[in-house]
Amino acid sequence: MNKQQDLFLAAKTALEDRGVDLNELAILVCNAQKKHNPDINEEVAMHHIISVLKKREVQHAVLTGIALDVAAEQKLLPEPLLGIIERDEGLYGVDETLAMSITGCYGSIASSNFGYFDIVKPGIIGLFNDKKAKPGEVHTYADDLICAIVAAACSRYAHRAG
Amino acid sequence: MNKQQDLFLAAKTALEDRGVDLNELAILVCNAQKKHNPDINEEVAMHHIISVLKKREVQHAVLTGIALDVAAEQKLLPEPLLGIIERDEGLYGVDETLAMSITGCYGSIASSNFGYFDIVKPGIIGLFNDKKAKPGEVHTYADDLICAIVAAACSRYAHRAG
Amino acid sequence: MNKQQDLFLAAKTALEDRGVDLNELAILVCNAQKKHNPDINEEVAMHHIISVLKKREVQHAVLTGIALDVAAEQKLLPEPLLGIIERDEGLYGVDETLAMSITGCYGSIASSNFGYFDIVKPGIIGLFNDKKAKPGEVHTYADDLICAIVAAACSRYAHRAG
Amino acid sequence: MNKQQDLFLAAKTALEDRGVDLNELAILVCNAQKKHNPDINEEVAMHHIISVLKKREVQHAVLTGIALDVAAEQKLLPEPLLGIIERDEGLYGVDETLAMSITGCYGSIASSNFGYFDIVKPGIIGLFNDKKAKPGEVHTYADDLICAIVAAACSRYAHRAG
Repeated sequence: MNKQQDLFLAAKTALEDRGVDLNELAILVCNAQKKHNPDINEEVAMHHIISVLKKREVQHAVLTGIALDVAAEQKLLPEPLLGIIERDEGLYGVDETLAMSITGCYGSIASSNFGYFDIVKPGIIGLFNDKKAKPGEVHTYADDLICAIVAAACSRYAHRAG
Repeated sequence: MNKQQDLFLAAKTALEDRGVDLNELAILVCNAQKKHNPDINEEVAMHHIISVLKKREVQHAVLTGIALDVAAEQKLLPEPLLGIIERDEGLYGVDETLAMSITGCYGSIASSNFGYFDIVKPGIIGLFNDKKAKPGEVHTYADDLICAIVAAACSRYAHRAG
Repeated sequence: MNKQQDLFLAAKTALEDRGVDLNELAILVCNAQKKHNPDINEEVAMHHIISVLKKREVQHAVLTGIALDVAAEQKLLPEPLLGIIERDEGLYGVDETLAMSITGCYGSIASSNFGYFDIVKPGIIGLFNDKKAKPGEVHTYADDLICAIVAAACSRYAHRAG
Repeated sequence: MNKQQDLFLAAKTALEDRGVDLNELAILVCNAQKKHNPDINEEVAMHHIISVLKKREVQHAVLTGIALDVAAEQKLLPEPLLGIIERDEGLYGVDETLAMSITGCYGSIASSNFGYFDIVKPGIIGLFNDKKAKPGEVHTYADDLICAIVAAACSRYAHRAG
């Protein structure tokens, strides 16, 4: 197993360990793209999710963001950063910056989709937003990483189907 | 009148000459921010729209984007670029890149709002999308510039009110 | 010949028509990467230049930027934008924004290299900077597009060799 | 003392605790800008460094990046991320992404300067690059944060002097 494959598995596992079901991401891609291409199905959508996760920039962003969520949950970060990440402060912005380094690889459609998902919060994205409200759980980065992966997969699909 | 004031007036006039009513932009800012701050009114929103238009990066983006729309409308651009801009091809992306240089000055909230407005197309943004369908009119850039100005004004307001 | 091939040829021709010799770009890639990988040669470097030019975002950025240079040279743009582009005003920035949409597809190494080339101006980049001083010629965008293509090709090579 | 002032002090202290002397950053700004404006002095340069550090996006980026360096130094991050940050792997890129969220607020001149400093590594930037070679010390983020703060201060100065 080469190093690139290692990173893919590490990023996928990091998401799953935080409660992210990749099938839920594929459903969001399907729902968003159906109006443009009614033929899309979950298998095709999952292929694009996986392809996004195979990109090194995406793996690095996922591993870094999840590590910050976990470190905050375990109170391993110093104040005032700890409180900012625990509360997912509206003006923090580093979570979105990291997420947009994912969409940045997939053209401007990905960025628009990211903004849309980030505000509308459909499906699993909304579930993670609720999770964040649970005492002790921190998903400040996971939230935006999921949005970005779905947005990137939508754009990847649209570029190939379009 | 100094040069910075010149650029502000040039950008404002360029938008108005293309049919953009700044009051309509202020209404969108109000509607988007009301749920966070019920006190916002159109006068306050207009103040933030004007402040965004006073930023040099914004003026340059507006003047360049509108010039490309007008040049396309007057068939002054070479093929294949002319056709791409006339048809506002989905994968073109330079219009969004230019627009995101506007939101880039206003934090990640501005980028998310841009994506949301770009997909939902409320109010005047939807009107411009319809305008684009009229024979002879080209608003490929105007469309995204409006989205970006509104998104930037929303973020500017949120940062100051938050 | 399919549409993607059309865009590649249009972008390549647009650069050549403005006096850009792609071999000069390959030389810059070689010189920059030699210290990391002494094996690189101009043929390999040219392969990466061509691969960068095959990317749709790059083609769109090149076609749009060159069209603005040409429109400025032919005085087809309105004031104050015409003067700003003719003089390549230091604070204009849209040229760099467009160029960075090229490097954005190739990771942060590409962005760093872009900044370096933009300031050091080696080889053909310096020649274009001198060209801009010639009366009647406008290369405000060409300048930055060249920097970005070279920087992207350097990063593309480094990612595959590294 | 209000919250914004808190964040400023937290970011300044975080840098100083990692060995960053702000006077050294002011010297780099002076050296870089002297060729454009011979009047600049270290006091003026320091004013711009401080102004950059007063921006919320900058404070968030500094606090997050330094926290990741410290967490890596204390082996608090999981593998494979720990090793990637400890070794400052060339293709990691999240450090530069974070740094560029600093320069993003200061126009394209800041981005070009960042790339230049990142490759040429003058003064304290080079010192930090050497520090990274010391066993046990991790400055993967500090490195790029310093570059970005200096580049942003240069651009801030240039926009006001220009």
